[in-house]
This record gives sequence, structure tokens and C-alpha cells, in this order.
Amino acid sequence: MLSKLYKPAGRAELLATHQAIIPFIHRTPVLTCQSIDDLLGAQYFFKCENFQKIGAFKMRGGASAALRLSESERAKGLATHSSGNHAQAVASSARAMGVPAYIVMPVDAPKVKVAAVRGYGAEITFCPNTPEDRQAELDKVVDRTEAAFIHPFDDYGVIAGQATAAMELIEQVDVKLDAIMCPVGGGGLLAGTALASHYFSPQTRVIAGEPEQVDDAYRSFHSGQVERNIDNRTVADGLRTTLSNRTLGIIREHVDDIWLVSEAEIVEAMRIIWERMKIIIEPSCAVPLAAAFKHKEALSGQRIGIILTGGNVDVNKLPF
Amino acid sequence: MLSKLYKPAGRAELLATHQAIIPFIHRTPVLTCQSIDDLLGAQYFFKCENFQKIGAFKMRGGASAALRLSESERAKGLATHSSGNHAQAVASSARAMGVPAYIVMPVDAPKVKVAAVRGYGAEITFCPNTPEDRQAELDKVVDRTEAAFIHPFDDYGVIAGQATAAMELIEQVDVKLDAIMCPVGGGGLLAGTALASHYFSPQTRVIAGEPEQVDDAYRSFHSGQVERNIDNRTVADGLRTTLSNRTLGIIREHVDDIWLVSEAEIVEAMRIIWERMKIIIEPSCAVPLAAAFKHKEALSGQRIGIILTGGNVDVNKLPF
Repeated sequence: MLSKLYKPAGRAELLATHQAIIPFIHRTPVLTCQSIDDLLGAQYFFKCENFQKIGAFKMRGGASAALRLSESERAKGLATHSSGNHAQAVASSARAMGVPAYIVMPVDAPKVKVAAVRGYGAEITFCPNTPEDRQAELDKVVDRTEAAFIHPFDDYGVIAGQATAAMELIEQVDVKLDAIMCPVGGGGLLAGTALASHYFSPQTRVIAGEPEQVDDAYRSFHSGQVERNIDNRTVADGLRTTLSNRTLGIIREHVDDIWLVSEAEIVEAMRIIWERMKIIIEPSCAVPLAAAFKHKEALSGQRIGIILTGGNVDVNKLPF
Repeated sequence: MLSKLYKPAGRAELLATHQAIIPFIHRTPVLTCQSIDDLLGAQYFFKCENFQKIGAFKMRGGASAALRLSESERAKGLATHSSGNHAQAVASSARAMGVPAYIVMPVDAPKVKVAAVRGYGAEITFCPNTPEDRQAELDKVVDRTEAAFIHPFDDYGVIAGQATAAMELIEQVDVKLDAIMCPVGGGGLLAGTALASHYFSPQTRVIAGEPEQVDDAYRSFHSGQVERNIDNRTVADGLRTTLSNRTLGIIREHVDDIWLVSEAEIVEAMRIIWERMKIIIEPSCAVPLAAAFKHKEALSGQRIGIILTGGNVDVNKLPF
């Protein structure tokens, strides 16, 4: 059994986390693409978490957090509020572990996402789409069921789970990576990636991509405190959240840089991955490649790993 | 050097073909998908030729045919008429072999396909979009350049190249396959797949999927002569061609069955592959999975290989 974490996972804890979640995740493939390498004049390795169970890396963090509960805690079920991939990760983890899941979703959540969560057998409660309403509804659910709340990113157990994507990438690529890139929203994946690099490939820099429209992580990274977004309109709908003190602490310590990209750059990078790699990724997932295009010269001739975070997109509502 | 073929390739010739084309192709991965297995109650192995160079299996046949020319023949260049994946395969093979390519394309060919062929450095000649005009224009090009015409399927060298997709699939899957499925248009891939199965996995049945709208191969398979289509309107635009005597001969000898599917069934299977597997395939490519859904009971509990033929689709013009 994994232990509860009150500080960022160390090397041994990360290895134990990976071992523990193996039954709940896919070891996703790392793909390369000659034509993208030619466009960028560098060598890219894409860790395909769009092929992960539930279609996104979030499965790793969900399973990692759920496995840190005691058996009696877990038996009461897992709860969260989310309209996105984290909801599916929690619902799917609960089903795999044979315990109930309680998911609070906004009334206007996309039908396809509601159906996916329901498909994993979760009980769904709908609420108005404001942070306050979500939290209030979740509190009611937790009061009633005594289920354990699994936060999408503000949790060292979740962060340790997300770290395993970069750990696998480092293992799967038989060259030394000069940098690993991923997107940043709440910072769970970025913090985990930074820990993985720190312990398992310390010469590898970690660089995040973030939409200009929601540049809170960029500003937080430079100011040292959690900054908010005034607006959150971006095509990269998975990256609208702000950091927490936990994720910011790890990011400030171990991340090398955060690069901003425009909406048009995100959509163009998404199209390039669709057309050149023939794989389906969601807009949030294209952000690091967009950043790589923008900083082509800085990365020229290098070996870069990119974590492709997810592929859950409504194919009837594409941004191009 | 590979020799010219005046009859279907045997076992040794297929192995030699695979060795010879290795520098020109990717060994594409074989993916599995738990949720499709659950839907179908069987175990599926998808050979991802959508990840092949130029985005389709056609690269195999193009390289195989080009390598069968003498050095002096090849030096004069490769020619073909096509608006689809075969044009890119010939253009890309020519570039890789350092010889010119001459491609005849209809004036109304999609711009993206014209740009792709031009991107490989081929000389393009446009003509009206009728079979007669294409052939007449190609004859003029060949007269002028003395380039070698590479037919998209009516050529034992091309068929031997297409066989290598199934050869790799048989090698990559560590279980015995009960059946291998692929689509049928001109029959090059189906004939090659049937030869591969015959020589390297003789207990494996070979079953093709074909659109009802262009059911010429189905009718030819049963009548024993090359049948025509009255209409060729199908979303599976790669499958509009009819068989040739060469492909029909091999198909009649070694293929077990051809199953027809409706347009709606093709689009639904395409959507399932996009949504569940997170990979991009073109409509023609979805036809065998559509046939597998239609004949779910017949395949229940079996191990089935499916050749996913290509991923070249205009993401702005999707059928769903």
C-alpha cells in the first residue's frame, strides 16, 4: 500500500507509486515523427497519454491518490467535482477498485463527458457551473457518503501519479533528453514531470507551455505567489485552472521555464499533430508543441520529450 | 535487387521483398483497444498503416515495384496517375531513390493532395477527371520521359509489397490470428494479405470488407470475372476502383470471404476508431471494422487482425 504524502514524493516514493498503479494504467507508447523533426530541426519524442486509459494522463494521478486511502476509507467511495478528464479518472479508478464513485458535474457539462462518467458506473450530481456551487454540492455529497475527495491536482499523491508519465518516457527513450515539455493548468502534471526529471534525469530541463489567455502559471512562476486569471477563455479547456501552493512550490523549485503561446499557435500545433502524426489530441495537449515551434531556435538540434496529455475531444466541434 | 514478377510472389520472394523495402518504410505499430474488444466480444489487433510513411500502406507497394526496375530503367523516373495515396507513394519512393517522379492528377484533385505530391518533388501534369484522359495524359508523359509506369495494384511487384503489412502483423502479434481483415478496392492489398496469410499463417482466414455502394469485388469474387460498378459514390473514396484479373485470381484462390457494409456502418466504425483509439483513419480504412461489427457473432471470441490502411483525411471535411 502507498502511504499518504505530506510533502513532494522522493525517488523511492515515485518508484513505489509507479509499481502500484501499473494494474490501473497503460504503459503508453512513445512515438516519433520525421516530418515534425524536419520542421523543427530537432528530435522529438511524444509520450502518448492520449492513448492512456480514459484517454488522458489523469488516470495516473487518480489511481495514485485512491491507492493512498486506507481500505476502509476507499470502501466508502471516491468523490470529486470535474467536468473533464479528472472526473473520468476518478470514476474509472473507483470501478477498477470495486468502490463507488460520486462525481459532481456542472449542468452544462458536455453530454459525451457525462455519458463517459456514467459509463464507469459513477453516481453523478449536477450543480450550477460556478466554483462555489461545485464545492458546496461536493461537500453535501461527501457529508452524505463519507467518500474521499480526490482533488484534481492539489494533492501530493496525485502529483506523484502524474510523475509516472515522465518516468516512463525517460525509460522508454534510449537517448538522454535535453528537455521535457508539457502543458500547465493546475500544475499537477508539470510538478510531477519536474520531480521525475529531478530524480531520474537531472540534466533534462523541464519547460511548460501555457496559453497566453490564461497565463496565471507564468505569472505565478515569476512572482512566487499563486496568481489568478481575469478571463479564462482559451481553446485549451483543460488549462483554465490556476496553480495551488503545493504545485507552485514544486514548479518554482524544479521547472526551468514556462513559455506562452497564442490561441492561433495552439490550433496550428494541434492541426500539425493530427495531420502529420495521425493521432487525435485535444487542444490543451498541443500547447507544448506550439511553444516548441515558437522557440524553435532555442531547441534546435536538441532531443525533446513532449507529454501528449489527452485525446478527449468532440470530433464534431473541432477548432479548425 | 528484386526481380520482376510474372506470377504471384512465393514465400522466398515475399521475404526478399520485405527485406528490400525496409529502408523505405516504417515498421508500423500494432495497437489494441480494450473498449473495442469489449464491444465486439473478441480480441482485435490493429496494424497501423495510417502511421506508415505518406500516411498509408501504399508506400510498401510503390517501393516494391520501383525496386524491381533495373537501375537504368529507374534512373528515367517513376510515373503514375492517381489523385490519392498511390501518387504520394510513387513520388516519395522516387525521391528516396533519387530519381524523378511524374504524376498525372485530375484538375479537381484536392489541393492538399496536390501539395503533398509536389512536396515530394514530383512533376505534376493535370488532366480532365476521366479514366480515358488520365491514361492518355500518362501515355504522353511516359512517351516524353521514358519513365516507368507503376500501376496502383495491377502488378505482382506492387502486390508483393502490400503483402508485407500482413507479414509484419503476423510477426508482431504473439498469438495465432483466426482471421485477418482489410478493405478491398483494386485488390492489391487484399491479394497481398492473402499471399502473406497463405505462406506465413495458413490457418488464418482472410476476409475483406467492401462498401455496398461499390460491391464489384464481392460480385467478382462470386462470379469469377472482373465486374464493374454502375455507380461509385461512397465515403470510402479509396475503394472506388474495380479489381484486375491479376488481383482477382489471387483473391479467388486465397481469400475466404468479402463482407459488404453500408455507408452509415462505415462512418460509425470510423467514429469508433477515432473516439476509442484516438487515432486518425480515413473512411476507407474503417470498412473492415464496420464488417466486423456487422458479423460480430461470427467472429465472437476470436483473435482478429485488422489492417488500418491509411490516415489521409481532410480534417475540415469529416463525414460525421
